[in-house]
Amino acid sequence: MEPELIGRKALAVNLSDVAAMAGIPRAAFVSLALPKSGGQALAEQIFHGLQSLAEEFEVVVAGGDTNTWNGPLVINITLLGEPTARGTVFRGGARAGDQIVVTGSLGGSLAGRHLSFTPRVSEALALHAAVDLHSMIDLSDGLGTDLGHVLRASGVGAVINADALPIHCDVDRGLSPEQRIDHALGDGEDFELLFTVSPHDARQLLTATPIDAPLSLIGEITSADGLVIRRANGREEPIRLAGWQHEFDG
Amino acid sequence: MEPELIGRKALAVNLSDVAAMAGIPRAAFVSLALPKSGGQALAEQIFHGLQSLAEEFEVVVAGGDTNTWNGPLVINITLLGEPTARGTVFRGGARAGDQIVVTGSLGGSLAGRHLSFTPRVSEALALHAAVDLHSMIDLSDGLGTDLGHVLRASGVGAVINADALPIHCDVDRGLSPEQRIDHALGDGEDFELLFTVSPHDARQLLTATPIDAPLSLIGEITSADGLVIRRANGREEPIRLAGWQHEFDG
Repeated sequence: MEPELIGRKALAVNLSDVAAMAGIPRAAFVSLALPKSGGQALAEQIFHGLQSLAEEFEVVVAGGDTNTWNGPLVINITLLGEPTARGTVFRGGARAGDQIVVTGSLGGSLAGRHLSFTPRVSEALALHAAVDLHSMIDLSDGLGTDLGHVLRASGVGAVINADALPIHCDVDRGLSPEQRIDHALGDGEDFELLFTVSPHDARQLLTATPIDAPLSLIGEITSADGLVIRRANGREEPIRLAGWQHEFDG
Repeated sequence: MEPELIGRKALAVNLSDVAAMAGIPRAAFVSLALPKSGGQALAEQIFHGLQSLAEEFEVVVAGGDTNTWNGPLVINITLLGEPTARGTVFRGGARAGDQIVVTGSLGGSLAGRHLSFTPRVSEALALHAAVDLHSMIDLSDGLGTDLGHVLRASGVGAVINADALPIHCDVDRGLSPEQRIDHALGDGEDFELLFTVSPHDARQLLTATPIDAPLSLIGEITSADGLVIRRANGREEPIRLAGWQHEFDG
């Protein structure tokens, strides 16, 4: 990978996290552990990629730390954001009857756009200003996993309509419809927003959308436990809420 | 090293940095890259050590990130501090004629106390409240190097009286006096404060010290370039201001 894109992505995923709470990103603290050989040139390239995205989002790189070591490259970014007057949006506010909406389209991100995506900061703020967002998350680990976080935090369940999923054109068109849906559900690194709103607010958003990105109504929050996917033939299948686990061996 | 002490030190060095600016530490963001094998237990121990120091200094661990990888342990902490009403103290404010003062004693820290030192947060605040601190730094890389940072940032020089250096009892007593002084000047990781004040304020501090730690007047800021050490026999030797360099090979 190009170091500029690594630096860009390191900041972009943090911007996406702030977007997921409808926050305004303000200040980044960037720390690098650099390999001793070639570290200085690498640091400059990483910073260059990071800085252009920071400028785009009016984020100040306000500090951090730089070290060298005999290990591989490590980047850590702490990004501080500020809530708007409407407050912060959390994962835990989904209510039975809410409509589930996603921005953009899903799947196949690792083919390339995971390095170049534009975090949905302005979209989140525009949505937050337009309607009452009950819950929101950014799709980093895959829709199934990330929606699972919302459901657990909110103590609710959900039904997703497979046919309603906006499948990205990066997902291989040679696959079967079911396989393509699985990619949209599981690939991860889409960095789109998933949020839940009342049916009234969902209708309002879909008839007069306040953002440029597409919005798709993909399902509904239920009072039942768990996440169910409704296939095109009407069949409903439970999706195991694996959740993202730290990969500890012991 | 014990993981608790690693976690403690990771926060302590950051607290020392905030102390060096006479700031009040407020919130820490802690990120870990953990080895996959045994990572979870390691994380808990590190956090335990860190958390007890955070509580001692009323610092909130407000966020961070945890990952696992096939690499060695990495800890990064971003610590946010707040200035008092008297403002922030910088490295660049030393003036010719200032007296140079250090807290505590120097050298031999790597024998053990680099893991267990108490950062001089309350001392820095008490000094800042009592007198007009022209410049301040914490001694992490060794007095010679860190005073060098102050001199360069302030555009001044300094004379240090070798006999006035408070040598820590951790420095081997079997060494020659000159060797012991070299340890006090160069060992690093003392995490004491070095600051410069007017002669009037220096006298005030030494007659009615506002802190429990010892204060030593070790020298004077000059308008000449460079750092000079005055030996017991009156001989003056320049000290090369190496400065801390990132160890890049290429």
